[in-house]
Amino acid sequence: MTVTDPRQIVAAKRDGHALAAEEVEMFVDGYTRGEIGDGPAAAFLMACLLRGMDGAETLALTKALVASGDTVRLEGLDRPTVDKHSTGGVADGVTLVFAPLAASLGMAVAKLSGRGLGHTGGTLDKLESIPGLRTDLSPDEMQRQVRSIGCAVAAQSSRLVPADGKLYALRDATATVPSIPLIAASVMSKKLAVETDLILLDVKAGAGAFMKTVGDAEALAEACLELARGWGRQARVAVSDMGQPLGDAVGNALDVAEAIDVLGGSHRGRLRDLAVAFAARGLSVTSGRDVEPALAEAERALDDGSALDRFRAMIEAQGGDPHVVDDPRGVLPSAPVVLPIESDRTGTIQGMATHEIGLASGALGAGRMRKGDPVDPAVGIVVRCKIGDVLERGRSVGEVHARDNDAARVAARAVLDALVIGDDPVTPPPLVHAWLE
Amino acid sequence: MTVTDPRQIVAAKRDGHALAAEEVEMFVDGYTRGEIGDGPAAAFLMACLLRGMDGAETLALTKALVASGDTVRLEGLDRPTVDKHSTGGVADGVTLVFAPLAASLGMAVAKLSGRGLGHTGGTLDKLESIPGLRTDLSPDEMQRQVRSIGCAVAAQSSRLVPADGKLYALRDATATVPSIPLIAASVMSKKLAVETDLILLDVKAGAGAFMKTVGDAEALAEACLELARGWGRQARVAVSDMGQPLGDAVGNALDVAEAIDVLGGSHRGRLRDLAVAFAARGLSVTSGRDVEPALAEAERALDDGSALDRFRAMIEAQGGDPHVVDDPRGVLPSAPVVLPIESDRTGTIQGMATHEIGLASGALGAGRMRKGDPVDPAVGIVVRCKIGDVLERGRSVGEVHARDNDAARVAARAVLDALVIGDDPVTPPPLVHAWLE
Repeated sequence: MTVTDPRQIVAAKRDGHALAAEEVEMFVDGYTRGEIGDGPAAAFLMACLLRGMDGAETLALTKALVASGDTVRLEGLDRPTVDKHSTGGVADGVTLVFAPLAASLGMAVAKLSGRGLGHTGGTLDKLESIPGLRTDLSPDEMQRQVRSIGCAVAAQSSRLVPADGKLYALRDATATVPSIPLIAASVMSKKLAVETDLILLDVKAGAGAFMKTVGDAEALAEACLELARGWGRQARVAVSDMGQPLGDAVGNALDVAEAIDVLGGSHRGRLRDLAVAFAARGLSVTSGRDVEPALAEAERALDDGSALDRFRAMIEAQGGDPHVVDDPRGVLPSAPVVLPIESDRTGTIQGMATHEIGLASGALGAGRMRKGDPVDPAVGIVVRCKIGDVLERGRSVGEVHARDNDAARVAARAVLDALVIGDDPVTPPPLVHAWLE
Repeated sequence: MTVTDPRQIVAAKRDGHALAAEEVEMFVDGYTRGEIGDGPAAAFLMACLLRGMDGAETLALTKALVASGDTVRLEGLDRPTVDKHSTGGVADGVTLVFAPLAASLGMAVAKLSGRGLGHTGGTLDKLESIPGLRTDLSPDEMQRQVRSIGCAVAAQSSRLVPADGKLYALRDATATVPSIPLIAASVMSKKLAVETDLILLDVKAGAGAFMKTVGDAEALAEACLELARGWGRQARVAVSDMGQPLGDAVGNALDVAEAIDVLGGSHRGRLRDLAVAFAARGLSVTSGRDVEPALAEAERALDDGSALDRFRAMIEAQGGDPHVVDDPRGVLPSAPVVLPIESDRTGTIQGMATHEIGLASGALGAGRMRKGDPVDPAVGIVVRCKIGDVLERGRSVGEVHARDNDAARVAARAVLDALVIGDDPVTPPPLVHAWLE
């Protein structure tokens, strides 16, 4: 490759020219190796954001991100491998349900997660609220577990797509996060670095998601699909609703308890429905079945205990206390204060300031604002109402789990303020706006 | 001022919003003090470049640059103070002529220059080719010299507009130089930090200038004028031609020798004409005279030796050898090799690749590519032809002053290649496209 002054690449993008793949790769390599500084890289990112990137440039960026580190290959499996990722929302515990459910349906799920920042912990933090459970599996441990049980959820190695971590930190510091090509490259690089037969992606749209509109979410979904196609990988992408919390629990241990209820078939609602939709989609694509019978199979796996069995096996294999499955609230850490949230109005829920509910849980200690901060596994919020529900003044809509009364009262107030109450009847929004492929 | 996350300011500009003056100031202050890193600052600059900045934002940026350092005030002068600045070109030695010429006409010129990068040295480097001459004058020395002689040319203190130096280095590294508001703020901050009665600005347009078209140069001129107005300062701006070298000499000592020839009245041409135009414009504005008689006065000051007297006095006051005025080529350093450049074609000069002539001089050692590098005072190129001149094959068009024969031959070849020769007669371009006020 010809050595080019990085300023020439920045200038070309600044002036609206499409970059050659080698130019994008040179830039990412140079930044990752420290040869290109934060200044030129940030100018490059802002120019990409404002001028846009075409499909070929975005693919080149993604390839450069993947090439910065190791790739993971699952070997010796006799079942199809499926990866699943959500762009993130509030009470979005689908992965906890999906991984064992898909395993019970004959798929192999080796889910690698990063430790992001957010109002609640990520999948790893939630799982680690189970006493004894480890997520720092070696590649060998991971492979063996998936071969024997069908699923594993582990921390991704720092050698997986390291350039993405470095570039994301710079984007976060330079207001260059909200660019669909940059987001798509970041999301997909981590999926493409792990060789699987199918990638399932959940792009969230709404007040509790990064993409506030269905249109933006569809554009991101399409960009991610184009990258999968450019890589020769099979993918299906749902654009799903994040106009309200998906499940009831917004925390860490609380989410695990809810996931166990869903896996055991006793808890119905949108979290179950979305986990079933993803598992069925995976089963349909990897086995050639139609979606309808696949949905019925997934429902059955929840109702007959086979999904919960997979979860128990996974917890045990990763060193966690398997009794959590039988008595989640007895085994999981609990908060000293549990304050019921009672509605202060009568009327129909028109909408929910979903992000604010997430922030209220973060303020209790359930999330982290800085890398490396601990999360409090026990605290959080449970919201047992959805858009379209009719509330009566004084009726319980959930509860706050907190370290003290003051914090609990603040969070309860925040939840009530987040509910938009009106007199009109409301049709709940659809759970999945569209499946793209 | 409310403490704001710098990312919010970057995001607002990214999204095309006009920033409040306090936001621009906070950003520049934060960057200058090292509280805001290169990344956010570069993203900010790229967003400013691509989204544009309105007059109020550009004024706020300029104020923040000026506020980052000291300001200079000339006191106890009984003559009007005039500052003059050129945006830069090839063989642009106007300041060397202008300062003593204006002083001889009753104005006071305290010219502070920076040491830029370029294919030839700046005004300071050119003057320092005079044996013994100092440009590191203290503020007191400068004041005394201007009071007694009427002119001084000195190095600007590192405490003058330090934020501009830091920001310019970042712009250079991040391909964010070519933005009219950013350029205007940078140019004018250094002029506004020195209190004078009149600012004269020469915005160059053409192949040898940063602004390649008259339209772009006029836009920059207008942006600079708007800043002067916003500051309540009087300014006149010329948009002048840089489609060919202005003078004949492209070097350092060579330029001083040419300036002395112009100051003594023996050398006519575009360099003299432009210096006269600036001096007359200054005289007209500061004295209320019409431009025509002011032009005649300026011509007379060159022809009767009074401008040269001022130059001699200035050189002596700054420690230089005053005999340079009587025998420039005897006193100034000279290069060991002087190679005549002979035309290899017959025809009319249609145009000149002016920037390439500058680069050829730089390759001889006349300029610096890195801050702190020395310049070779003796080397350079003299080009004694202009657009519209009819050349004959074998006729001398100038000469190269070099350290060795090989370097001289390369430079001579570059000069010949830079001449666009054709059969059509050509009307030379105007020297000054427009005066703006």
